[in-house]
Amino acid sequence: MRYLTEQDIDNIAIGAAVLGTGGGGDPYIGKLMAKQAIAKYGPVQLISLDELDDNALVVPVSGIGAPTVLLEKIPSEQELMAPLEKLEEVMGKKVDVVMPIEIGGVNSLIPVAVAAKKGLPILDADAMGRAFPEAQMVSFHLKGFEPSPVTMSDSKGNCAVFFPVDAKSYEGIARAITVAMGASATMCDYPLLGKEVKTAVIENTLTLAQQIGEMILNGTNDASNTIDKLLKKLDGYKLFSGKLIDIERKVEGGFTRGIATFHGLSDDNKYTISFQNEYLMAKCHEQYLCMTPDLIALLDLESGLPITTEKLRYGSRVIAVAFNADPIWHTDIGIKTAGPRYFGYETDYVNLPELQNKSGGNNV
Amino acid sequence: MRYLTEQDIDNIAIGAAVLGTGGGGDPYIGKLMAKQAIAKYGPVQLISLDELDDNALVVPVSGIGAPTVLLEKIPSEQELMAPLEKLEEVMGKKVDVVMPIEIGGVNSLIPVAVAAKKGLPILDADAMGRAFPEAQMVSFHLKGFEPSPVTMSDSKGNCAVFFPVDAKSYEGIARAITVAMGASATMCDYPLLGKEVKTAVIENTLTLAQQIGEMILNGTNDASNTIDKLLKKLDGYKLFSGKLIDIERKVEGGFTRGIATFHGLSDDNKYTISFQNEYLMAKCHEQYLCMTPDLIALLDLESGLPITTEKLRYGSRVIAVAFNADPIWHTDIGIKTAGPRYFGYETDYVNLPELQNKSGGNNV
Repeated sequence: MRYLTEQDIDNIAIGAAVLGTGGGGDPYIGKLMAKQAIAKYGPVQLISLDELDDNALVVPVSGIGAPTVLLEKIPSEQELMAPLEKLEEVMGKKVDVVMPIEIGGVNSLIPVAVAAKKGLPILDADAMGRAFPEAQMVSFHLKGFEPSPVTMSDSKGNCAVFFPVDAKSYEGIARAITVAMGASATMCDYPLLGKEVKTAVIENTLTLAQQIGEMILNGTNDASNTIDKLLKKLDGYKLFSGKLIDIERKVEGGFTRGIATFHGLSDDNKYTISFQNEYLMAKCHEQYLCMTPDLIALLDLESGLPITTEKLRYGSRVIAVAFNADPIWHTDIGIKTAGPRYFGYETDYVNLPELQNKSGGNNV
Repeated sequence: MRYLTEQDIDNIAIGAAVLGTGGGGDPYIGKLMAKQAIAKYGPVQLISLDELDDNALVVPVSGIGAPTVLLEKIPSEQELMAPLEKLEEVMGKKVDVVMPIEIGGVNSLIPVAVAAKKGLPILDADAMGRAFPEAQMVSFHLKGFEPSPVTMSDSKGNCAVFFPVDAKSYEGIARAITVAMGASATMCDYPLLGKEVKTAVIENTLTLAQQIGEMILNGTNDASNTIDKLLKKLDGYKLFSGKLIDIERKVEGGFTRGIATFHGLSDDNKYTISFQNEYLMAKCHEQYLCMTPDLIALLDLESGLPITTEKLRYGSRVIAVAFNADPIWHTDIGIKTAGPRYFGYETDYVNLPELQNKSGGNNV
């Protein structure tokens, strides 16, 4: 157990924007919310999986919706707390520990804000090891747990609770409510006991995000070297360096969807990265470089700082990097849940090392 | 207090299709559900407003969605009961009386099926005095009551509870969930005490529907005379008789929307009736004949039987009739909630007697 410091929050925000593969909402917003809550309510305990009581009620708190909307509609304290309070009311018991559902952007830090206000510890783990756009794309689902009851709230004070019967119904109802709530909402799902959580989460990801953030923030004056160190730490690959020459982006069905096109900086290739909240597929012309569920991150060429989908602008000069997803995503159900075909791409999943051998990538 | 007989159910189904102004779902489906439930669980008590205990918990049960979808996806017993059972669970108390939210088609009889199964009485009243397409278009809203908690369920077993903060959020969230649930769902809303219900409902409408149905079913061999008697009873107007020459109909946003065009049978005029689940506006060329919230019904020329929006077919020969809405709909908030401008028509509301004087209608 340790307490999260202000510096830890800064680091987590940056590291979670890398692991969040461009999604999970702007980490800057999450940082503000977490710091403000700690300043107001006191420090937050970070506990490891070993320290988690088997009978503790553990609840993820997250934002759901289009990151571009979240930017303009920052959740109030009331909106952030409402899903957890409604869940306690519906279940008739108190929540003991909160956790991030994904280690991405704002969603890595929203639980810190809730933990501060409620005086609860936060678990050093998440249910993706990255960020994903849809509600059922979580290790809890892969392990067969039910999300019910799910609670949601919006900026106006609307609150909903629902009990989905399967993953498709879950995402469908959650997304429909999100759209009705203005394309951005706060939610709790998968309330589980400590012993259940232990079988399903990806461990130490808040600490990992913090370490990545620290590395990047300390190395902004030598981005190239920092990125090399990062790739080494995460056993990652450099996909390309490029300048953004075109971006299509639209908010539809409660998501931010689009394609970013880059011109190579050290070659004449055209690279594309498609996204649905998160970066999903990287291509050089017709050759895939990385496929979901593996992680793609875009880092600013000058500073090494991660760039989220909603911050991509014409002229952005980036280094695209990729990392292997947690092994749970490479299982059959993992690929079925969040592989290329699920997102509508007409290709089977090919793992990152294999793609990089084919395309002659630079594993450092 | 009296028990509803099989014949009563037949009559209510027909009368509610008249008062339901083409909407509220196919009365045939409601009739089947009500009769089946009574055969299985025993007779249902119909109680008047005078017989309602001030402290009884009264709950409307209804179908929500596109009537064209309901036709193909008839709610199971489990789906019908789930919203009431979830409401009891959330509120921590038992429901004492059920009621129809609207006196339209299937929604006048769904509460009979629920009442039979639960052994509860049904109140002889509704919250519209007709049918309307949107969730907040109820006398309870006009009188300032809150719909929370609202419960919904679908054919797969999904269940949702929500707590909307205002009428716009209410309709938005309810409709979004309906679409996610496959464009047709079952719901409970406005759980109120007997003393509250007494200040807000439109009284004796199940009995009125029954009387109308009896009149029509007994007079199918002399439809013209029957319709005259009906207009006399309801102080109504004959708008036109016509043959359907065109119908546009689409399911969008959880509604069935469209326009039906008729050629006059005793004149050369073109008549149109536009609908959103319910018939809303009747026109002869550019002259309005009847405007929402007043009631429009289409009766089969040969039999006098009412025709719902989803049953309109090319060649249908109809008599279009109109009745004044309950006075609560002629208040400022009534017109604001369900008048022409709410539905996007660029006209102020003009009452039925005035429109009929202008167009030279036939008040009998």
